[in-house]
Amino acid sequence: MAQNNRNKIKKAAVEVISKKGFFNTRMQDIADEANLAVGTIYNYFSSKDEVLSYIFKNEMQRRMEYMSELKKENLKIKEFLNKFLTRHFSLLAKNPHLGRVLVREKDFSRGEESGKIKEHMNSMIDMLEMIFDIGVKREEIKAINTHLMAVYFFGSMQGIIEYALTEPEIELLESAPDFILARINDIFI
Amino acid sequence: MAQNNRNKIKKAAVEVISKKGFFNTRMQDIADEANLAVGTIYNYFSSKDEVLSYIFKNEMQRRMEYMSELKKENLKIKEFLNKFLTRHFSLLAKNPHLGRVLVREKDFSRGEESGKIKEHMNSMIDMLEMIFDIGVKREEIKAINTHLMAVYFFGSMQGIIEYALTEPEIELLESAPDFILARINDIFI
Repeated sequence: MAQNNRNKIKKAAVEVISKKGFFNTRMQDIADEANLAVGTIYNYFSSKDEVLSYIFKNEMQRRMEYMSELKKENLKIKEFLNKFLTRHFSLLAKNPHLGRVLVREKDFSRGEESGKIKEHMNSMIDMLEMIFDIGVKREEIKAINTHLMAVYFFGSMQGIIEYALTEPEIELLESAPDFILARINDIFI
Repeated sequence: MAQNNRNKIKKAAVEVISKKGFFNTRMQDIADEANLAVGTIYNYFSSKDEVLSYIFKNEMQRRMEYMSELKKENLKIKEFLNKFLTRHFSLLAKNPHLGRVLVREKDFSRGEESGKIKEHMNSMIDMLEMIFDIGVKREEIKAINTHLMAVYFFGSMQGIIEYALTEPEIELLESAPDFILARINDIFI
């Protein structure tokens, strides 16, 4: 039940923040969208900063879990990245509100929660770096700077998503996975 | 004199916004940093949103001018991109405050000025697309989707800059131009 309400609040918050921007969003707006009393929301989150941080935490966790599942399948790294990109971009194409919040509001929160959002984003970059490291060890990937590669890869994903969702040119999200993979094709042995 | 004061205000604003964040910055803070009366600042800018928008406009214009100069030199596109990347990244390594404002505050302003900032950023993407189009026409670049290429290229630049300046890992900025060029090497004929 608690998790249910959390998800309900998260879903409503994504919708409202995407439309009004985080700065202009009040807890009351989220409550209205979720059909909950604002007091109920405060049982789960002490501030709107905490709601935003939860959105990032939850979404990054979902991607980490998906990556862990994929790792168990013991795919080639190239195939792994292909599956990850395809899933990530199709998820955002289906839920542009979520994508908009993830790419536009990451620097918006200030103070303690802002540091947490940065940590959630960086955990994705760390995970990608680990994947590239595995590739190098397995001799599927050349001896590149895997740290810079992870930052670059994540940045190019974010850049396309941000542009595609704000312009909006949602159709770019469909071509993105193949395009990104073609650009990094030279790193594979 | 007017342009002098504008630049003085811009420089002070970059410093303050980088340290405090746009949201927490007041016109008085910018005035203090610039050693000007706050009334003087209002002679040039009617709001802090307008100051932020001016920073983006001015910086994007400088890059466009540099690109125009480079175009006159009639370089190969690959050499052109190399020069552009090297200059852009070394400029930001020397002035991380500016870089931080450009990558972190682009979504911060709301309302009319926010739309203008988006336009300034998109004018860079348009310019890059034009460069890639010239490359295709001259048969230096394969028949790729030049629009997606420009979005991708700009996104990967921004991603590295954002990470390098916020972590901070300024040394990434030095390796970035060669790394970015190596990744897109496959598009050249």
